[in-house]
Amino acid sequence: MLYDSQGLIMREIGVGLLGLGVVGSEVANILLQRSGRLSEQVGASVSVKRILVRDPNKQRPFPFPATLLTTDVSEILGDPSIDIVVELIGGEQPALDYMKKAITNCKHVVTANKEVIAKMGFKMLSLAAQHGVDLRYEASVCSGIPILSPLQQDLAANEINAIRAIVNGTTNYILTKMAREGLPYEQALRQAQELGYAETDPTNDVEGIDATYKLAILASLAFHTPVRPSSIYRQGISGLDPKDFTYAHELGYSVKLLAIAKRQGDALEARVHPTLTSLETQLATVDGVYNAVQIEGDLVGTLMFYGRGAGGGPTSSTVVADVLTIARSIAMEGIIRPRIELNRRIPVIPMADIQTRYYFRLSVADQPGVLAQIARVLGDHRISISSVIQKELDPDAQTAQVVILTHPSVEQSVQSAVAELAALPLINHVGALIRVEH
Amino acid sequence: MLYDSQGLIMREIGVGLLGLGVVGSEVANILLQRSGRLSEQVGASVSVKRILVRDPNKQRPFPFPATLLTTDVSEILGDPSIDIVVELIGGEQPALDYMKKAITNCKHVVTANKEVIAKMGFKMLSLAAQHGVDLRYEASVCSGIPILSPLQQDLAANEINAIRAIVNGTTNYILTKMAREGLPYEQALRQAQELGYAETDPTNDVEGIDATYKLAILASLAFHTPVRPSSIYRQGISGLDPKDFTYAHELGYSVKLLAIAKRQGDALEARVHPTLTSLETQLATVDGVYNAVQIEGDLVGTLMFYGRGAGGGPTSSTVVADVLTIARSIAMEGIIRPRIELNRRIPVIPMADIQTRYYFRLSVADQPGVLAQIARVLGDHRISISSVIQKELDPDAQTAQVVILTHPSVEQSVQSAVAELAALPLINHVGALIRVEH
Repeated sequence: MLYDSQGLIMREIGVGLLGLGVVGSEVANILLQRSGRLSEQVGASVSVKRILVRDPNKQRPFPFPATLLTTDVSEILGDPSIDIVVELIGGEQPALDYMKKAITNCKHVVTANKEVIAKMGFKMLSLAAQHGVDLRYEASVCSGIPILSPLQQDLAANEINAIRAIVNGTTNYILTKMAREGLPYEQALRQAQELGYAETDPTNDVEGIDATYKLAILASLAFHTPVRPSSIYRQGISGLDPKDFTYAHELGYSVKLLAIAKRQGDALEARVHPTLTSLETQLATVDGVYNAVQIEGDLVGTLMFYGRGAGGGPTSSTVVADVLTIARSIAMEGIIRPRIELNRRIPVIPMADIQTRYYFRLSVADQPGVLAQIARVLGDHRISISSVIQKELDPDAQTAQVVILTHPSVEQSVQSAVAELAALPLINHVGALIRVEH
Repeated sequence: MLYDSQGLIMREIGVGLLGLGVVGSEVANILLQRSGRLSEQVGASVSVKRILVRDPNKQRPFPFPATLLTTDVSEILGDPSIDIVVELIGGEQPALDYMKKAITNCKHVVTANKEVIAKMGFKMLSLAAQHGVDLRYEASVCSGIPILSPLQQDLAANEINAIRAIVNGTTNYILTKMAREGLPYEQALRQAQELGYAETDPTNDVEGIDATYKLAILASLAFHTPVRPSSIYRQGISGLDPKDFTYAHELGYSVKLLAIAKRQGDALEARVHPTLTSLETQLATVDGVYNAVQIEGDLVGTLMFYGRGAGGGPTSSTVVADVLTIARSIAMEGIIRPRIELNRRIPVIPMADIQTRYYFRLSVADQPGVLAQIARVLGDHRISISSVIQKELDPDAQTAQVVILTHPSVEQSVQSAVAELAALPLINHVGALIRVEH
């Protein structure tokens, strides 16, 4: 029994944890170790009741009482003393079923599961609203960085115009290595794997899949419309060449995997791809495993939120905060309901129709007239050139590198022009095509 | 009468505004223009009832119905249909009295008033708690940047170790001009005044007074202890010389007016002064009128929040968000009380006792043995040198500039050493003494 500063018995709020991996262990440890201070903050005693594990005998970084551990999920989902279920299993199943069951059993849910929230968030929030419980998922996007709550609460008066974000630490680490040390992609990836920043199968990160989940969540909340991950254009970083980092830098840009969502009239752009990012912006200087989310609101102007987007410490910081927010609401006896403000229906523009600036690099024969040919093809497709760099690369082979930066152009025109250029006899190949963001 | 999406009558929440200047006009305009969408978000109709002005006949950027305006504050503080009072007069009085009166009349209060909150926040919050109303003041620190709410809510599980922040746009604009264009302080200040970034009497900004208010609020919330503005060491930017920006840059630093609060054992450092800030940090690259707050939490690691810290748009964005948060709580019929978690008592370390690294510049006679003399004085005071730059400045006068960067040293030792150095015959004068932050 816990007492508050006035000596009154504090209400006990029960927490059940699903999963005791890196994040789960930290969350459990914080709730147990800091329970006095946290309970005082909340005005109720927040108490870990039970933790779902696969193997109760596994060695763990923190020693938890064996009585807390269970392999039977119904001992959590069916326990009436548990008010809040924290899902930290990850992946789509069985996490989704467990969360649904928790909600229909009228338990509040906290999760860091970006995949479930990105794909099923709207349905889950509606289900939570029906059952009068809250569903919080701040850690699902850029774990340690408070971003969903500021977006929904502190920026509520704004119309959001654009989001540009570095939401994947693995790829940002690899890109930073390529930029600083001129490493080829494969080598930078290997270093990231050795340091534990990339998984053995890195597909989810390096192909931008993880980033589409996070952008789907961010864009849905920012524009008050459900944005499905499958509607987001996606291109990963595995095709990048360190040469382009050097040329980009000469032109005043760094190369980042950006997640971009922008309002364009009555529609949205939503895309994840390597992007030349102007060195004038704060975003371009975000290096290593750090994440950052830049938001443009019509009242507030440009904001940026920067921090660690993964790891046990940052993620548990946010998960525990979500638990405390719900616990505080329970203690204050208000009507609790999740924020669902997805009351608009805004279509995503097909990638072929978007307009942006482009960088491309051509490996060409070092002969007169090449640039004229390139310029003619671009002109035919109504693509206007902003800068050109020509570099003699291999004097023996008589090839040169031509780097072109365009003014805003339509994606499908650029794709057709590039295909046409690739077919020209004097052009050996198109080495890179990267979109540009101011 | 407003109806929600189910066709039910929505509760009306009345708002009274005190002040109709730049921010007040924007706030009133947003609440009036966006009332449909905002009311839907809140689940109640949010309605501007009355606005206190000095002169009802003044021309204003937005046309407000004359019936909304009043010169009699009691028409707001005494109106039972007004639930939330928004104070945007600024300064200590009469703002403080009006807010107290609003609270004792059981009205919730939203304010952007950093001076009142920094000096009287704890008392005001207690008063609000007694009367069962909320007091929100997110816009009082770095107006447009959501920082107080993330600090109190999203970082609640952390022990905060340090805050380093650029909280004053005027001085950051002046410092950016001095760094980029080598302008002397007076000229950079004049440009800031011409652009409306600095006031005719710039004392409050350039001497760091404004920054101490903001740091007092940030540090109080971060460390759960009341930190009074008067307990914060303060040095402004008016003594800076553009030369030091050049030398600092050579050493890998930019010069920023930082507000710093750090935990040191059982005590706190709290200080505002020009600071050499490592170019490796995101904070060092924050330029122009932008603000940024860097927070170090034990779980979350380093976070940074970046955006505009002043102006009608950013401030009204935050003030309206605070109004909506309270309105949402009213609509959800919970117990509303302000967050007061100032339950620790941590003393601020006297400035003489702090330890940090120092940069100083000496103008010396260009003669043999000078450096040896300097090194001896520093050694006597147990100050160890990290880097030295010596520059011949004026060959005719035979003077040179010696720039020294120290390892961590105690403030009072450094001050004594500098006094002793200034008295040496071969040293013409001490041109600068600036603290360093990694």
